[in-house]
Amino acid sequence: MKNKIFFLFLIFTLNVGCSQLKMEEKMSIKDTLSVIHSRKSVRNFTGEEVSKSDLEKIVRAGMAAPSAVNKQPWSFIIVAEKKKIDELKDGLPYAKMLSKAGAAIVVCTDPQKAHDASTEFAIIDASLAGENILLAAEALGLGAVWTAAYPNVERMAVVRKTLGIPDKIIPLNVIPIGRPTGEDKPKDKYKLENIHWERW
Amino acid sequence: MKNKIFFLFLIFTLNVGCSQLKMEEKMSIKDTLSVIHSRKSVRNFTGEEVSKSDLEKIVRAGMAAPSAVNKQPWSFIIVAEKKKIDELKDGLPYAKMLSKAGAAIVVCTDPQKAHDASTEFAIIDASLAGENILLAAEALGLGAVWTAAYPNVERMAVVRKTLGIPDKIIPLNVIPIGRPTGEDKPKDKYKLENIHWERW
Repeated sequence: MKNKIFFLFLIFTLNVGCSQLKMEEKMSIKDTLSVIHSRKSVRNFTGEEVSKSDLEKIVRAGMAAPSAVNKQPWSFIIVAEKKKIDELKDGLPYAKMLSKAGAAIVVCTDPQKAHDASTEFAIIDASLAGENILLAAEALGLGAVWTAAYPNVERMAVVRKTLGIPDKIIPLNVIPIGRPTGEDKPKDKYKLENIHWERW
Repeated sequence: MKNKIFFLFLIFTLNVGCSQLKMEEKMSIKDTLSVIHSRKSVRNFTGEEVSKSDLEKIVRAGMAAPSAVNKQPWSFIIVAEKKKIDELKDGLPYAKMLSKAGAAIVVCTDPQKAHDASTEFAIIDASLAGENILLAAEALGLGAVWTAAYPNVERMAVVRKTLGIPDKIIPLNVIPIGRPTGEDKPKDKYKLENIHWERW
């Protein structure tokens, strides 16, 4: 009798183990999609610092983006000094949420490095890197928001001047990063009318 | 004696269960970053079909991208008919890998819908959606590669004509999607010289 109970228990625990492994597999597959869907533009930060290690992970994710003919025309300025963050905030009308951000990342791009020396490819490549940055922040439990510098000439000038960026380099955006207060929520942007099957 | 073994076994399995749960939690956090880093341009496909459900998941991920002032100027054409995929392949010099793809997604964008009716924002917004599509494909165990239509006038004309896309709409790319053969591997594109701290 005891033996029977023992073996039933053994079978039961093996089953639990297996279904847990299956669940784990499912979760890890679902996870990227759920991060993509839970990513939101975070404008409300607690004011906490962001660790250097997290900032490096985020920028590393940016560099994993594809680029036309693998030219990687991008570069990234990580701003973590409060004084510099405030200078950016003071110069940029739509980046006031920088006041409570723990850091900012500026995605830059160099048309001369891009495929065919094309500004279009330089912008697209750096945009893909930028999306990776937003997703990596979300994945790490942080919040981020893309505030555009390009194509606005005045805002690009402010970012260039504040961070000493050469004229030939395009500062695409300023991405404040920080610990979210929880106020910002993802939007459901699914629209059936934006999907076409087989042709327009 | 048997009781002792039984209880030791019970404690052991409970421990295994707990550590599995912890591993699961870690894995699901790590997963998005690992998907970002394992994403590669897949050009070698097995020829298998891609399910409608996976294609919908992928496009849904595209729509979760941020866009300037939330204008969502994008739309997506999902091409799953072999005949149409072959027509795209025949017209596009750099999309020959379509021959073994299970489907293709064309990311389109409408400057008139974009913030400030700006082509720049229309392109950036749709690019972010495109990166989500590449990552969603990787997350689902599929492969994808961005083949550019924009800014090449001839290639945009081929895509427009093949899929009946109006002139005012920009077809940004053609993304073949399929089951990868495993030949394509991710590149390590981490470059310390592309990171600047505090200023350029």
